[in-house]
Amino acid sequence: MTTDSKRIINVGVLGATGTVGQRFLILLSNHPNFKLIKIGASKRSSNQTYQSIVKWKQTVPIPQDFQDLVVSECDPKEFDGCEIIFSGLDSDVSEEIETKFRLKDFPVFSNSKSFRRDGLCPLVVPLVNPDHLHQIPYQRSQLTSPSYPITKGFIVTNANCSTTGLVVVLKALESSFGPIEKVRMTTFQAISGGGYPGVSSLDILDNVIPYIEGEEEKIQWETQKILGNLSTDQTEIILRSNELQTSCNHTKTNRIDISVTTTRVPVLDGHLSDVSVSFKNKPIPSIDEIQQVLKSYRTDANSLQCFSAPQFPIFVHHQIDRPQPRLDRYFQNGSGINIGRIRKCEVLDIKFIILTNNVSIGAATSSIMNAELTVAKGLI
Amino acid sequence: MTTDSKRIINVGVLGATGTVGQRFLILLSNHPNFKLIKIGASKRSSNQTYQSIVKWKQTVPIPQDFQDLVVSECDPKEFDGCEIIFSGLDSDVSEEIETKFRLKDFPVFSNSKSFRRDGLCPLVVPLVNPDHLHQIPYQRSQLTSPSYPITKGFIVTNANCSTTGLVVVLKALESSFGPIEKVRMTTFQAISGGGYPGVSSLDILDNVIPYIEGEEEKIQWETQKILGNLSTDQTEIILRSNELQTSCNHTKTNRIDISVTTTRVPVLDGHLSDVSVSFKNKPIPSIDEIQQVLKSYRTDANSLQCFSAPQFPIFVHHQIDRPQPRLDRYFQNGSGINIGRIRKCEVLDIKFIILTNNVSIGAATSSIMNAELTVAKGLI
Amino acid sequence: MTTDSKRIINVGVLGATGTVGQRFLILLSNHPNFKLIKIGASKRSSNQTYQSIVKWKQTVPIPQDFQDLVVSECDPKEFDGCEIIFSGLDSDVSEEIETKFRLKDFPVFSNSKSFRRDGLCPLVVPLVNPDHLHQIPYQRSQLTSPSYPITKGFIVTNANCSTTGLVVVLKALESSFGPIEKVRMTTFQAISGGGYPGVSSLDILDNVIPYIEGEEEKIQWETQKILGNLSTDQTEIILRSNELQTSCNHTKTNRIDISVTTTRVPVLDGHLSDVSVSFKNKPIPSIDEIQQVLKSYRTDANSLQCFSAPQFPIFVHHQIDRPQPRLDRYFQNGSGINIGRIRKCEVLDIKFIILTNNVSIGAATSSIMNAELTVAKGLI
Amino acid sequence: MTTDSKRIINVGVLGATGTVGQRFLILLSNHPNFKLIKIGASKRSSNQTYQSIVKWKQTVPIPQDFQDLVVSECDPKEFDGCEIIFSGLDSDVSEEIETKFRLKDFPVFSNSKSFRRDGLCPLVVPLVNPDHLHQIPYQRSQLTSPSYPITKGFIVTNANCSTTGLVVVLKALESSFGPIEKVRMTTFQAISGGGYPGVSSLDILDNVIPYIEGEEEKIQWETQKILGNLSTDQTEIILRSNELQTSCNHTKTNRIDISVTTTRVPVLDGHLSDVSVSFKNKPIPSIDEIQQVLKSYRTDANSLQCFSAPQFPIFVHHQIDRPQPRLDRYFQNGSGINIGRIRKCEVLDIKFIILTNNVSIGAATSSIMNAELTVAKGLI
Repeated sequence: MTTDSKRIINVGVLGATGTVGQRFLILLSNHPNFKLIKIGASKRSSNQTYQSIVKWKQTVPIPQDFQDLVVSECDPKEFDGCEIIFSGLDSDVSEEIETKFRLKDFPVFSNSKSFRRDGLCPLVVPLVNPDHLHQIPYQRSQLTSPSYPITKGFIVTNANCSTTGLVVVLKALESSFGPIEKVRMTTFQAISGGGYPGVSSLDILDNVIPYIEGEEEKIQWETQKILGNLSTDQTEIILRSNELQTSCNHTKTNRIDISVTTTRVPVLDGHLSDVSVSFKNKPIPSIDEIQQVLKSYRTDANSLQCFSAPQFPIFVHHQIDRPQPRLDRYFQNGSGINIGRIRKCEVLDIKFIILTNNVSIGAATSSIMNAELTVAKGLI
Repeated sequence: MTTDSKRIINVGVLGATGTVGQRFLILLSNHPNFKLIKIGASKRSSNQTYQSIVKWKQTVPIPQDFQDLVVSECDPKEFDGCEIIFSGLDSDVSEEIETKFRLKDFPVFSNSKSFRRDGLCPLVVPLVNPDHLHQIPYQRSQLTSPSYPITKGFIVTNANCSTTGLVVVLKALESSFGPIEKVRMTTFQAISGGGYPGVSSLDILDNVIPYIEGEEEKIQWETQKILGNLSTDQTEIILRSNELQTSCNHTKTNRIDISVTTTRVPVLDGHLSDVSVSFKNKPIPSIDEIQQVLKSYRTDANSLQCFSAPQFPIFVHHQIDRPQPRLDRYFQNGSGINIGRIRKCEVLDIKFIILTNNVSIGAATSSIMNAELTVAKGLI
Repeated sequence: MTTDSKRIINVGVLGATGTVGQRFLILLSNHPNFKLIKIGASKRSSNQTYQSIVKWKQTVPIPQDFQDLVVSECDPKEFDGCEIIFSGLDSDVSEEIETKFRLKDFPVFSNSKSFRRDGLCPLVVPLVNPDHLHQIPYQRSQLTSPSYPITKGFIVTNANCSTTGLVVVLKALESSFGPIEKVRMTTFQAISGGGYPGVSSLDILDNVIPYIEGEEEKIQWETQKILGNLSTDQTEIILRSNELQTSCNHTKTNRIDISVTTTRVPVLDGHLSDVSVSFKNKPIPSIDEIQQVLKSYRTDANSLQCFSAPQFPIFVHHQIDRPQPRLDRYFQNGSGINIGRIRKCEVLDIKFIILTNNVSIGAATSSIMNAELTVAKGLI
Repeated sequence: MTTDSKRIINVGVLGATGTVGQRFLILLSNHPNFKLIKIGASKRSSNQTYQSIVKWKQTVPIPQDFQDLVVSECDPKEFDGCEIIFSGLDSDVSEEIETKFRLKDFPVFSNSKSFRRDGLCPLVVPLVNPDHLHQIPYQRSQLTSPSYPITKGFIVTNANCSTTGLVVVLKALESSFGPIEKVRMTTFQAISGGGYPGVSSLDILDNVIPYIEGEEEKIQWETQKILGNLSTDQTEIILRSNELQTSCNHTKTNRIDISVTTTRVPVLDGHLSDVSVSFKNKPIPSIDEIQQVLKSYRTDANSLQCFSAPQFPIFVHHQIDRPQPRLDRYFQNGSGINIGRIRKCEVLDIKFIILTNNVSIGAATSSIMNAELTVAKGLI
């Protein structure tokens, strides 16, 4: 939004009553450029005011301006006038509905898993691979048709909340120290990552659940795509391979082996991870060099002065017992990654603790920052 | 206690009002051979009844028989008639007091860290290395003197609560598949591991603390000793080396590299760990073979029919989301190790989840089982 | 079971896979007289072994004997040979199914709310009003018919988990000090009271929910019936009236005014309540007298030597900060009531804290004790 | 601050490293009139920067401007230039230190209990009894002396965190409906009310503690003073009496009987209370009238346009399960009172749920608002 920072863009939110949808409304209520004009939810909620049907679960009240917005069905014809669609739809309906919106030439920023593995859809963590957004023109070119011409529409997704923190740190490390070869990660994931009602209190109070369905595979796969390269003709993301992708067409160089265990802990918001990594290049950098590189890591979101970009994409903690979910998850409004305890690993090269706010940069904030980047890059 | 299973042995407990001390009383109230006759606490509590001074925090009431026992100072002369001393003393006083009791020829089973690295004191996890108890005669021979002849006294310690689960599993694996080379472990430790009052509720509610002082070093070091071999002359434990012990006199074979991250989670009892290991020998065993070996692992505590020995030293869970602290920590009265999610690791060879009841097999139960083993082996 | 204590009675459990059903299995696995031979669940679970279909959530494993019991549909013809039926069915199906079992002449002990307000069904808290069981013959006489003769069948219910503790204490007080006139109660109810999955972790972690649907009315109403008298002809329970029952046919004497606020707190098991009461008779008893009366309170369940009866129906705590859910809920296996902080109230006469184990005496334990009483009274 | 809203006043904070002290710093970092220039802590912390010695526990970072402020001892001579002193000192040192500051002619706003019962010190809840501030001149007149002339100094205290919510609601009710006669309150208090480290996690996780030392007496006593009247000569607060104050010199009219049970629950911030009250005047108002009165309640803090005053001193919730600590404690930045579930009581007249943010309006926010009021009233 560099050249045209005062431009106001009308936007709509799909799945506005859900957990991610509620976050979209809070973030948009303070946004200088994005003006929320339409909100969509299920058919049975339509034609009623937002506040009369939402089961609001946020710690701030419903933004004043949106309380009496009338809810629409998630049908493209109801969203006329929106230049951007943010989708917080659940994965059981997102594929069908988001496809319809794209077909009707809407740019869609999706939070669901439906299109993450789609070869035409960029999977973008805004602090990592905004360059993948340049695949958008190719997506349009492949889907346009005489009956449904697509000149503005596309689908861009963001990553699983537990992938997000990892890839930001790996990207920063690779930028300065070359390829990462191995990653061993153990997550401590917050209950809000499971949606609402999600995790039963009887399952998680005074407990840890050492398994989250599908989560380990998601992290292992998505990392390969996000850290992959956009082909020079901007038509394809070349995956970083590991054994999960043996059938994919990719170059065998710079493979990353990733081993993840995901767990659920009795924490409301904020995914913590314990991570070990090894570098391809030796000798490995010193802990000081690593801290320096992570601290000074900046992204397109910074240089393009995106409104939602954190001042410090990666904040390096020096207190030995930080980051902690409860103390650090709201720092920088949850839009940056926290890291601490960076030290030598006796098995791989180095190890450290990451904290990612799963409901902010791990979800709605990523979508909004992706939209800001897409606008700033002239792709909307 | 095979040959003489009805023998009654009088015992005393030091530090009886603390967390570990309270557990000793519960366990001893049901013990067929060990009869608690003396309880020791700080000087200001002495000469009062146990129930009048203890801040009892267990979910069962104070055992009827012990409520009115009069508390003594932790002075050897008060413990006449005790053949075994169990110590739940804090590490700030344990070294001095336990040394005094040994000097007065009492066998002492200690829970504190004071003597774990002492070259004369066996560090025994009863489900792993009861053969190390045979170092006891050498310990006596080195400390006896004309003025203080030691014929029965010694100090035996058990491991840190978070070490215990790991070494049981590693021992079972090594017994069948040869040396383990690398271990990467992330712990989720219960608050009871921090003693009372220990962790402030303001620090841990809705939170994870990714650091416990001194804990990572303890696990890395203790594992080297517990999995080490007693020298053939029964005078020395030959440590398994890693970079922490470069100055130790040990053979360089069968080194284990161990990398640990320890964290505190809002769980009352039960330490969970996520562990990856690699084997020296290739090809590595199949998951089925590993499960079979862990299931059928039995120890001296079983063959010597120790009262406190779990039927299954290692219980293998097959439900994909188990073990869990709240559901599995009391299984077998907390005296065995729980394991689950055994699967291939993309970085090392295999990975799995361990659960250890830190207040049972991780503490008082280990001491009592060590005492049972020592009696059964004729060393008391 | 005084005269015939070795008699073995075959029993069945309906709703065996639910929370209450699982508790029934644990309690019955240790019962000297009741032998579980049939377990019922939903149609889709039938003809499979119990362990293959249950989502077991208890801290002890499935009782060995019941793991491979084959599950039946909840159809009376599948339960031939059962002399007693325990029902843990949810209230959405309990009315229909329990009615069918009674019609086929089975004695049914129900945990659901369906028949609590039924004029023919005793609502029995075993530590309070076992004499109401003598309404059973009248119930049979009203429902028998030539086509469906009822000679053994009936339905007896037990109270809502949060009512149970209150009425035990009120009954003990009234027995010695005459009518209670006013009750003001605030509850702190455990999440297990809401069933599984029940309360979302996102709603209750770091929170209190000051409302539970329908719960305040249940406590206020059920108390009137449980503390009511069986008419001399044993045909009717004469309610203690309050404004909720203005249309009931009851005497206007000894009305109790009850005001309740029910809340949910992040506690797994154990309902705590803060209660103030006032007496009709003045002067009111001293705190010492009250403590003495509560301590020495005994019931039919004691005198008839029911297996599940607690030694102390009401246990009086003297530590100023007790009872507490986590420390006291399992005392006496959860079969008694805990009370503490008995003191003068500045507004009513006295106030105190009650703790009731909602999954034990508040649910399955009550049903089983009711069955023991019914057998002991010769009504089965 | 109506007439002179741009006046900048230099202030100091005593006990700046404690829980309340940290809140003062956050609030002052955004204050338009109060400029923090001095921070005091214990002697061993003095002469070091604030960030080097504080164990910061807030969810926002240390305000940028204060990170490098050098900490002083809590000695009046270090606080030259401060026109107002805010004290977050613990009660074990507050009496001595705050007295010294007053003697040196500093206005002191104290959070501790030391001076709440002092006949010369106003006990002011800013949303209730700011008129009591007019006792300040009399306080000065009684304490001034030739050697220590007091022309500006005084001590004003605010209430216990659990008293605050109650008195705001009672005041609003009495303003419209006449005297309250009886109050029965049960509290659910957050762990932050116990300071740091305060409540052990082993005591409160999965638990409720039905007792907080001294808390019930504080609420019962403080309410009598806060709702009392300043005598017409502005020299004395005339207490509202109950049996606790039989020795006080007060009029016997409009006595309030207050019965309180205080408990601790596993909630981080936000004290919830269940309250029943009865009115002296009959007939009692309708629920609608009561809601209307509470909603429209405004205070001097509003009319004097105090910066920290909440727009709605009492916010009336209409959702049946609100207010809840986690969802509502930060509303209006924690500076107002939340109320819900206002309904008839079967024992007293009405009952309702109150939520007060104990670390905001229950502590530091009250002090700051009291200071704003004192300035606005021309008393500083």
